Amino acid sequence: MEKHESLCGDISGERCGLKRVLDIIGGKWKIMILCVIDREGTIRYGELKRKVFGITNTMLANSLKEMEDDGLVKRVQYMEMPVRVEYSLTEKAMSIVPILLELKRWGEENLK
Amino acid sequence: MEKHESLCGDISGERCGLKRVLDIIGGKWKIMILCVIDREGTIRYGELKRKVFGITNTMLANSLKEMEDDGLVKRVQYMEMPVRVEYSLTEKAMSIVPILLELKRWGEENLK
Repeated sequence: MEKHESLCGDISGERCGLKRVLDIIGGKWKIMILCVIDREGTIRYGELKRKVFGITNTMLANSLKEMEDDGLVKRVQYMEMPVRVEYSLTEKAMSIVPILLELKRWGEENLK
Repeated sequence: MEKHESLCGDISGERCGLKRVLDIIGGKWKIMILCVIDREGTIRYGELKRKVFGITNTMLANSLKEMEDDGLVKRVQYMEMPVRVEYSLTEKAMSIVPILLELKRWGEENLK
């Protein structure tokens, strides 16, 4: 077998790129949030909550805050009454979408 | 923005390919197991346990059983005394490695 680049020399270490990716988008909710915002483009908090079926307010608010801190989600607050808050993906988050699409296709082909 | 193929129309549903992939390799241990077997090619149970740092016997045995059932891991038992058991990746598992490598590179470039 021809040997490819090592998938992970130190996946147990904090420096592994793959582990860092799974840390920031792994888990059921964050990947769902990313998928919904990707599909909608820009979305308000309430609509996001309705579309990420089953998520609690705490979980959604915490996940969005972490994704904002990780530079994946942009949050824009409009000074209206009532306050309107909209979320969209950053360029960085958009650049991971094609790789996730490949994973999705792999799943569709290989996991019947 | 040009609209790409939808990342996930129904990620909350069991039919979503991306969700199925995350179900079978998501989580800290399975991805570490996959990485170690990928790097070693063929590996005995005891050595795998040593290299997946911090995993318990129960967790390793259960994860390997599930990965075998999901068609990701091949288990070969040699009838020697003491019994020797070796694990390697299936063709299917090997075909996901290049996509995981892309994710890893993305992480290295985008998550400093």
